[in-house]
Formats: sequence, structure tokens, C-alpha cells
Amino acid sequence: MFDRLEMLRSLSIEKKTRMVLLVMDGLGGLPSAEGITELEAAATPNLDALASLGETGLLEMVDVGITPGSGPGHLALFGYDPRKHFIGRGVLETIGIGAEVLPGEMCARGNFCTWGEGDVILDRRAGRIDTDSSTALTARLGRTIREIDGVSVRFYPGIEHRFAVVLSGEGLNDRVTDADPQSDGSPMSWSRPLEPIGTRTANVINSLIKKVREVLSDEEKANGCLLRGVSGTPDIPLFPDLYKMRSAAVATYPMYRGLARIVGMEVVDAGKTIEDLFQAVKRDWNSFDFFFVHVKYTDSRGEDGDFKAKRDVIEKVDSLVPQILSLDPDVVVVTGDHSTPSKMGSHSWHPSPFLLFSRYVRPDGSESFGERVCARGSLGLMPGHKMMGLMLAHAGRLAKYGA
Amino acid sequence: MFDRLEMLRSLSIEKKTRMVLLVMDGLGGLPSAEGITELEAAATPNLDALASLGETGLLEMVDVGITPGSGPGHLALFGYDPRKHFIGRGVLETIGIGAEVLPGEMCARGNFCTWGEGDVILDRRAGRIDTDSSTALTARLGRTIREIDGVSVRFYPGIEHRFAVVLSGEGLNDRVTDADPQSDGSPMSWSRPLEPIGTRTANVINSLIKKVREVLSDEEKANGCLLRGVSGTPDIPLFPDLYKMRSAAVATYPMYRGLARIVGMEVVDAGKTIEDLFQAVKRDWNSFDFFFVHVKYTDSRGEDGDFKAKRDVIEKVDSLVPQILSLDPDVVVVTGDHSTPSKMGSHSWHPSPFLLFSRYVRPDGSESFGERVCARGSLGLMPGHKMMGLMLAHAGRLAKYGA
Repeated sequence: MFDRLEMLRSLSIEKKTRMVLLVMDGLGGLPSAEGITELEAAATPNLDALASLGETGLLEMVDVGITPGSGPGHLALFGYDPRKHFIGRGVLETIGIGAEVLPGEMCARGNFCTWGEGDVILDRRAGRIDTDSSTALTARLGRTIREIDGVSVRFYPGIEHRFAVVLSGEGLNDRVTDADPQSDGSPMSWSRPLEPIGTRTANVINSLIKKVREVLSDEEKANGCLLRGVSGTPDIPLFPDLYKMRSAAVATYPMYRGLARIVGMEVVDAGKTIEDLFQAVKRDWNSFDFFFVHVKYTDSRGEDGDFKAKRDVIEKVDSLVPQILSLDPDVVVVTGDHSTPSKMGSHSWHPSPFLLFSRYVRPDGSESFGERVCARGSLGLMPGHKMMGLMLAHAGRLAKYGA
Repeated sequence: MFDRLEMLRSLSIEKKTRMVLLVMDGLGGLPSAEGITELEAAATPNLDALASLGETGLLEMVDVGITPGSGPGHLALFGYDPRKHFIGRGVLETIGIGAEVLPGEMCARGNFCTWGEGDVILDRRAGRIDTDSSTALTARLGRTIREIDGVSVRFYPGIEHRFAVVLSGEGLNDRVTDADPQSDGSPMSWSRPLEPIGTRTANVINSLIKKVREVLSDEEKANGCLLRGVSGTPDIPLFPDLYKMRSAAVATYPMYRGLARIVGMEVVDAGKTIEDLFQAVKRDWNSFDFFFVHVKYTDSRGEDGDFKAKRDVIEKVDSLVPQILSLDPDVVVVTGDHSTPSKMGSHSWHPSPFLLFSRYVRPDGSESFGERVCARGSLGLMPGHKMMGLMLAHAGRLAKYGA
């Protein structure tokens, strides 16, 4: 059966060309009462000029009507069909709190909990202990528990009662149930294998929980833990092998840095502000062929339901776009990983507006960058995971298919 | 799994209707400094009129961003998904130099080479001997070597040191490596099976090379040969069976004649000039239901990087289009097999502009025939291999699916 990734891998070639993929998280929106969207309302002279010199379209990240999470949205942008390649919640949250996860390692989301007599879980969140306390507890676990049954263990602190665990060793997989009773006052429910090959992982998870019980036995509230969402990085070919390019992730939020690392990009210092992102691209321009630049705040303000604030973030990004153009990139793509209409205050299924600029475009008459203009663009409604190959083509990095 | 070809085969019916598929090779282009493409710049009153009476769109022959070779591009136009049906380099080059190849036969590209002591290949191209010499050598091989191990052998001369071989017999396949050391001064590398079923073919290839060595032992430079790219015709259902129509290929270049023959079309005398192509259609109008008319020079001038010359070829073709219309065809499609922008001087991934005319269209307001008009056409961005079924539908040659 046809495998687009395999085709890209077999056709990709090295070339001295540079690409920028600028992702405004949750870029797409919906019209307000005034009848225009956040992006349409924003004054974006630089993006409008790029759109008029380039080609536009809409990206469908997963499938018609399907609202993408951040994981699937980014996997699609990176060229992986998110209907075939799933990224588990455990690994996504683990990288989201800043952990580094390598292929083959297994992650689990942890809760500190209050453990009672007879293995009854009295409070699954240990009274929602504060972040400082749980960070101290996580550090204590990290100092005392380094290995379980030949598997090395790393702990990462999270918010309030949350933390994450990464297990590294042979023979681990995600074919296990959660070690979590799901409700307060219920007897502990231990991890079980979903298939025989999950037996070792379930045993490690359960042994780890027992060890945590020993270490925390003197704690009043947080005297135990639960572990769930065991998952590893997706089994996918990685960027250097697939696309034969040096790729930099310029992102400030841990989850997006983690997602980029999982597909084989190099994560560079991106500072803290939107301005910093663009400075980082400039600083590293000669060290990489491909730059994934991630702006989080479009999504954050959309989730807040704040139309004007989302619009303002878009305007801010627009004002910085000339800094990228001054580097003379061969290909620029601007898009989102999903839509986050402020009207909904959440991710949505609406496809993402998208523009592509290179010297090999057929400009399609788009006079500005917006959802409705893109809907009439010459690139049409494109599966999101096909965009990456199109960037490579415009960068001269794909050989001809067949003689 | 859904198989479109199977569906077309099961629904296709005979009917007294006639279709013309006019392919201008490498038709699609890119804007020059003036902002318009070769096709947009060409004065094409006849094609413009057809577009305004018909429907337009863009054809994506392989997949987004993928640059089609001539083989995949034409397979798509003929209704075969080139992501599933590949045509090997050996067979394509063999038909390209005018050989006829039947299903089950295996082709290989040959080089005359200079063979030294201890089976070292001194010069893989035998000093790039001239075409006359190699043609004489090929004829000599053809007279003396007719069979190897029960497999019949045919030789075809090529340019300079090149020739082609067609092997015909039971149990042959393409699961073998090249018999070629890849570099001058290296010891001969013999063909090996990639799987056990390739053993017989590898043995035949190696025996043939040894036999050629004997025959050419008195030659100074070209005293041996190398064989590579072993491949046969793709395993696909053929036109007469699939579409139940009498199909004529009107093409002057051997490769396109060969491609048409491989899918089961009848190759007719097409003369030498563009005018001859149209005369041939007229001559054979009553003998066939479907005419594949192939104009090579749009691609050639695009490869030359000559914008104006490519534009002129398009204008020439346009001036001849009325000759086809005067025959009152039921369906006319005009398109390319891939794009060849003169700006790039090579094949490219940009989709091919395409117009369809029949009495059953919904004219979509296209006022001319060009890339950007087609990008807004009602047929949208269509996978190239779906076009053939659309032609059949417009010709009344597909029965209803289901009751």
C-alpha cells in the first residue's frame, strides 16, 4: 500500500536551501458579531504581502470535522498522518512538563495520593497539595529511586499533585492498564498487562508504586502515588532520516519542544518572548536547513475567549515576519496546528489557513491572509500531513518520482 | 479495499462515442518576470473557447509535492494510480528506444564496456563509442545470440554506448541486482537474486553477459557489456479489458508509443510533425473510440528553459484544435502529464491544468485555459488517475453503480 512518508524518504535529497515553518498555535478562528475572524480582523500587512506573492489554502490536520489535539496537529505539520501515527497522552504530558523522552522509553503521568489501610485510595490527589510541596517530593523520589527491576527511572515535577515518570530499559511497552482506582475511597487498582508482552511493564509500574509507598511512608497526605497513561514515543521515522535536513525547533513551551524532539529536530534556545523566537532564528540561520517556529499565545488567547487579544498576538507576529524575510529563506509556510476560535474558547475542527511562499509558486491572487481568502486559494483543502512534502518540493529537496 | 480500476472495469460499457485525450507534455508552467505562465501568455483562442464551454481543474498525477517522471505521469492519465503501479526504468528506457515489450517479458538497459584481465571493467562506457558503431555491434549480437537457457533474447540499439535487451521466457522477474560494477576499474559485479525467485533471471542475465563477451572478444574497446534496471511491464489490467474501447495512440516519440502499447492501446502511424498528429486522428477517426494524442515539444522547450518557444508550441497546438472539433468528438480533454516550467528547465510537482469538454458539462465560468483559471475551476484539484473515468462517464460509457 502507498506510504507517503516512505516516498518522501526515498526521494528526499540534501540541498543548500532554507525553510521556515511558522506556526501560530490555534491560528484559525470564527467570525465575531462583526462578521470577521481574528486573523481577518488583524492588520497584517506583511502576511498579506506574502499571501499575495505566494499560494494559499487550508490544512485539514486529521480529517473533516475532527478537532485535533496539539499532538496530532503538530504530527501532521511535521508530515506524519495523525490517523496512522498516534501520540499517547502519557508521553505528551511528560514532554509537556519538560522531560526529555527517547524512542523506546515509556512515560506515565503520576498523581501523589493519600493511601489508606487495606490499600484503599482515600484521595487520588492527596488534597491537591501545592506545587512546591509536590516538587520537593518528586525530588526526594528522584534521589532515592533510580532503578526498578533493571529499569532506570526518572521523575519530573508537575503542577500541584502531578508529576511524570520516564522508564528506560529493555522490553517495555504500553500494553498495560492504568494503576489507578479512578475514584476516591476505592481499593487500589494495579496495572495489568493488556497482552502477555505487557507483563514486564505492568510489574515495573506496580513495583515502582510500592517503592514510592515505602519512601513516602512518613508523609501525611502524599504517602503514595498512582500512575497512568503509560506510553512511549510514536514508532515513526525521524526527521534526519526522512528529510535529510538539519532541523531546529524554536519554541518556548515544553510540549512543543518535546514534540519536535520526538520527531528528531534539534531544540534550540528560544528565549521567552515572541521577539526572542525571531532572534533565535536569526542567530541559528547558518546552522540549520529547517526552522519550526512556534508561537503559543494565539492559542492561549483563543482559549481565553479573548478575540481582541488573539488578534493582537497575530498583529505582533506579523510585525516580526520581515525579520525572517530579511534572511532570504527559500520557502516560508505560515499556518496553525488547529483552529482555536475565541468564540468557542477551545480547539476546533475548522481547517487551518495556510500560505506558502517560494520562488516557484503560481501566485493565486490571494490579496490577504485569512480563512476565507485561503478557502479560495489554489492549494485547496489539503491534508495537513502533505504540507511538509510540498515545502520540500519548493526547496528543491525532492527528486523526481520515476523516469 | 476500494479499487477504482476494478470499479471502472465492472461498470464500463461499449457505446458509439468518441473521445480525444490531447496531452501537451509538460504543459504546466510558472510565471515569468511578467507574472504569467507560458500557457497564460500563449494566444489560445480555441482552447479558451473550449474551456469556457467546458469544465476546468488541476490534475495531481502522483501526490502533493511529488514531481512525476513521464512514466508515472502517463500511467495516471491512463487511469492507473502511479503510487500503486510503478513502471521500471529498464522497461521505460527500452520502450523509449523503440522496442516492443509484452507483458511477462523483462527488459534491461545495456552498456557496451571495455573488459580487462581478471574480469576488471576498465571503462563502463567503452570510450563512449559512437552510435553507428554501437548500432553495428547490437546488430551483430542480434544475429548471433537468440537464446540463453531457453529464454529468447532481442537486442535494440541506443545512443552511443547504450542498447537494450528484452528477455522473453518462463519464470523471469525483476527481483535481481544490476550486473554492473558502478565504477571504472572495479571488478565485475554480477547480477544476484534479491529473493530466491530471482535466481533464474540473475543466471540468464549473467550467462548473456558471458555470451556477449565471447561474441565481442575480437573488439578492442567494446569487448563486453553490462546490464541493469531489469524490469518488465507493470502488472495492470489493459485498456481493452478495462474500458471496453478501441484505443489509438497518436504519438511520435518512442517512449510514449511504448507506454501506450504497454497499457493495451494500438499505436498508429503518427508522422513526424505536430500537424501530422492531427491528420492521423482524422485519418483513423472511424477506426477507434479513444485517441491519445501526444505532443512532445511543450516539454522539450520547457526543459530548454525557453519560455517563448514553449509558448509558441502551445499556440501551434491551439491552431490545430479546430481540426479535432470538426470531427465532432463526444469528449475532449486537454492537459499535460506533469508540469515543465521553463523557469526551472525540468519537470516539476505543480499540478497540470486540465479542461474537459462534452455535451454534459456544467460550464464553470472559466474564460480561458491557464493554470490560475484552472485552479479556480469546478473540477478542483483532482488525482490525475481519476480523470480517465470522468472521460468515460462523459462519453456515456459507465453504467450506474448499484441499483
